[in-house]
Amino acid sequence: MSTPDNHEEQIVIAHGGGGEKTRQLIAERFLPKLSNPLLTPLGDSAVIDIPGRRIAFTTDAHVVQPLEFPGGDIGRLSVCGTVNDLAVSGANPKALSLAMVMEEGLPISLLDRIIESIATAAREAGVVIATGDTKVIERQRGDGMTITTAGVGEMRDGLGLDTKRITAGDVVLITGRIAEHGLAVMSAREGLGFQTDLRSDVAPMNGLIAAVLDSGADIKFMRDPTRGGLACVLADLAEDTGFSIEAQEPAIPLSGAARHAAELLGLDPLSVANEGKVVMVTTEADAPRVIDVCKRHPLGRHAAIIARVTSSTPPLVELVTQSGGRRLVQRPYGEELPRIC
Amino acid sequence: MSTPDNHEEQIVIAHGGGGEKTRQLIAERFLPKLSNPLLTPLGDSAVIDIPGRRIAFTTDAHVVQPLEFPGGDIGRLSVCGTVNDLAVSGANPKALSLAMVMEEGLPISLLDRIIESIATAAREAGVVIATGDTKVIERQRGDGMTITTAGVGEMRDGLGLDTKRITAGDVVLITGRIAEHGLAVMSAREGLGFQTDLRSDVAPMNGLIAAVLDSGADIKFMRDPTRGGLACVLADLAEDTGFSIEAQEPAIPLSGAARHAAELLGLDPLSVANEGKVVMVTTEADAPRVIDVCKRHPLGRHAAIIARVTSSTPPLVELVTQSGGRRLVQRPYGEELPRIC
Repeated sequence: MSTPDNHEEQIVIAHGGGGEKTRQLIAERFLPKLSNPLLTPLGDSAVIDIPGRRIAFTTDAHVVQPLEFPGGDIGRLSVCGTVNDLAVSGANPKALSLAMVMEEGLPISLLDRIIESIATAAREAGVVIATGDTKVIERQRGDGMTITTAGVGEMRDGLGLDTKRITAGDVVLITGRIAEHGLAVMSAREGLGFQTDLRSDVAPMNGLIAAVLDSGADIKFMRDPTRGGLACVLADLAEDTGFSIEAQEPAIPLSGAARHAAELLGLDPLSVANEGKVVMVTTEADAPRVIDVCKRHPLGRHAAIIARVTSSTPPLVELVTQSGGRRLVQRPYGEELPRIC
Repeated sequence: MSTPDNHEEQIVIAHGGGGEKTRQLIAERFLPKLSNPLLTPLGDSAVIDIPGRRIAFTTDAHVVQPLEFPGGDIGRLSVCGTVNDLAVSGANPKALSLAMVMEEGLPISLLDRIIESIATAAREAGVVIATGDTKVIERQRGDGMTITTAGVGEMRDGLGLDTKRITAGDVVLITGRIAEHGLAVMSAREGLGFQTDLRSDVAPMNGLIAAVLDSGADIKFMRDPTRGGLACVLADLAEDTGFSIEAQEPAIPLSGAARHAAELLGLDPLSVANEGKVVMVTTEADAPRVIDVCKRHPLGRHAAIIARVTSSTPPLVELVTQSGGRRLVQRPYGEELPRIC
């Protein structure tokens, strides 16, 4: 196939100028895939009808490299990240904003794939892209794009999400296998020299979360263990509640491929980012029901009880290892895997 | 003053990892200046109580270079840009999200100034920073930061903002002098070789807009003429309404310094970005009242009627020049001034 005008196949500075060329880019690339009654007027703001008085509001900047990786891409990641932040806060996600900063030279075919992926993820999650912005910066490394999404959702009534309600004897569970997002992104980077079948778990978790909440189980806490992984969520829990967490290493869902990849990279799977998992705290009585609801959902088949809240002091996270030993789990200090989400 | 640990005075990759170092950055740099009851819990989402059912939702990515310029910086720009998008849509801005992508090597002193500026602008506008995210990318040019803000506001009831209501005889006005933001940013770039006293007009316009709407004047359209400038707003108006716009060049507020700077740079001031101005369309009967309300507000002292809606076909924007000639005003094609906002 001939490419008579190479210039037209890459993002150029003028695509970000707000003039005719920006209008064309939006009309030809974005609207055909993302069109909906909120976005299409392209006004300064979208107007959303939210019956509840209380709305949830969140934002995430996504800088993942490479932009496409096994199981996902920056577009899917952006939608799911924001949907999941709303859902774990107890909100039904309604609408997202989408702000793209593209580097001059970005192939338009790549942009098209990412927009398609955004559209697919938004459909899966049942949200609309309500408003957006595009900017273009000068060529740096030639392949760059960051996407910042913000989201609004309607708060569900009658939830008891509150870490103050957590007490000794409560149960910590996770909806599936850990560490797959971070390891899949790493596997897509050049020069790391490892082959794997791992795919990112990036997925919108609002459907599974709604099923759990609809079951009436007493959920006291939910969080998606992204940057910093499960380790960071457990460390936050101990710090916020003043209780200790005793986690059972053999109970933590981890595939053989992920275990192997983490060993190769010298990483602790507990500190690796997930993008399609939720950590929940519930009562001992309700835990079996929650696990049951999760397992019946396609995104929760590997759900498992992984830890218990205990009153030992000082409040720490202890991991009982495969061999029966104990080690402390700490919040990662910096970033073991840069630009993972 | 000694700088015993230079490393600590710049952003490093670990500041973006979501672990302990990110927590420190937020606790030490962001919260002291931006703290409020919505942001401070640092949950996955902020929960906002909005009594109205209809909320406005918008986003903007800001990539301005340099990060600081006469009259403002990327922080003030980010707050004002989103506040203004909400306000021109007829909403009272309530809460903003703030997502920063910082380049490794960014001086922390610069970050501190930008956060301070965000706090000041948010106070001026009467909004809170409700939620945020920070990411760090590898060093590129060493001075980079982009800020994406999203905002939610409560829609005012009983407004008649609708371009379908615009008709021949209606009046177009602007709240002050044009082109000062874009020209001030350009003047701060190295190597352009011009000196000017121009300062960016970047300001939150929600106060002035509320005063105009509270006056009961029949406002049919509002927009802030940012990228693409006044030219882009007038071209959009003609296209959206099917009516022509006849603008009077001598009536368009433009300082001598801005005229001079635009001439030096070979730019049409009509196409240069503003960040503290609003274009409004109202009836002929209500126009004097609107101008009067604007002139009594500190940000509207140079408000002026600049154009009229006419029924000449095809729908075009015509400028009657100083010398009495006529020229067509078109939407700028690309970007005359890259990274201006």
